[in-house]
Amino acid sequence: MQKKIALACLTLAVTGSALAQQLMRPEEMIQTRQAGYRFMAWNMGKIKANLEAGYNKDQVVAAANLVAATANSGMGALYSPASGKNVGAVKTRVKPEFFQQPDEVKKLAVAYNKEANELARVAASGDAAAVKVQFGKTGEACKACHDKFREEDM
Amino acid sequence: MQKKIALACLTLAVTGSALAQQLMRPEEMIQTRQAGYRFMAWNMGKIKANLEAGYNKDQVVAAANLVAATANSGMGALYSPASGKNVGAVKTRVKPEFFQQPDEVKKLAVAYNKEANELARVAASGDAAAVKVQFGKTGEACKACHDKFREEDM
Repeated sequence: MQKKIALACLTLAVTGSALAQQLMRPEEMIQTRQAGYRFMAWNMGKIKANLEAGYNKDQVVAAANLVAATANSGMGALYSPASGKNVGAVKTRVKPEFFQQPDEVKKLAVAYNKEANELARVAASGDAAAVKVQFGKTGEACKACHDKFREEDM
Repeated sequence: MQKKIALACLTLAVTGSALAQQLMRPEEMIQTRQAGYRFMAWNMGKIKANLEAGYNKDQVVAAANLVAATANSGMGALYSPASGKNVGAVKTRVKPEFFQQPDEVKKLAVAYNKEANELARVAASGDAAAVKVQFGKTGEACKACHDKFREEDM
């Protein structure tokens, strides 16, 4: 029994941060990941507006850094199986396939991560034409996951 | 008249990105800034969990970068005067004083910005003890604004 408790404590210590995430309720996971996407979308919108008129390098750098930091933040931890369904008034658009095709999810996530980090790198150069190209690639990487794993309607 | 139109076009071109933000509805501003704070809070929570058990440098770096990128993202643009009140079911906790004391808001915003960027810098060093100190300072900078400009209840 003592051995079991010691093992449990060790597991708790080693996986502390992972555990902290697991303690989130499914509806909190849904709300937190949607918050991340919404705030990132605002920043993507700022980059788009800058590309359309009055390019401001500092604003684009700040927005691209936010997009990359969101991509790097480990949002996979916000997708427990229980968070795959609506919880009361908290709705999710994630499709069941998301939880059935982990390899495909990983492939799309890695691609999005790569493009988002490249966007931050290109933004720092101040080359608006290059940012425009990379912004398009990043948007495509977002869309690839939406097309496959997000319901159109809530 | 032509001069006026030309001036208006110039203003539109120069302030394109600022204008894009102004076109957001007040309720969208409320939802977007709350999304930013919620997603940042998740990342602050990850740093806290790492400091309590099983410190993982990569996870702390990623989370601190998200906190800094959020601080650097120019959220002031999400606080139009019209967004200072509830819009239907979209509630805000911002106090009227926020819009009456721009100098105080700026002072607190600059302080929060400084601490968040320092958090990202310290996280990159991998020094958990230093991260703990800087995490505390960042939390204090968040709280300073909450105490002054955020209602306790929705």
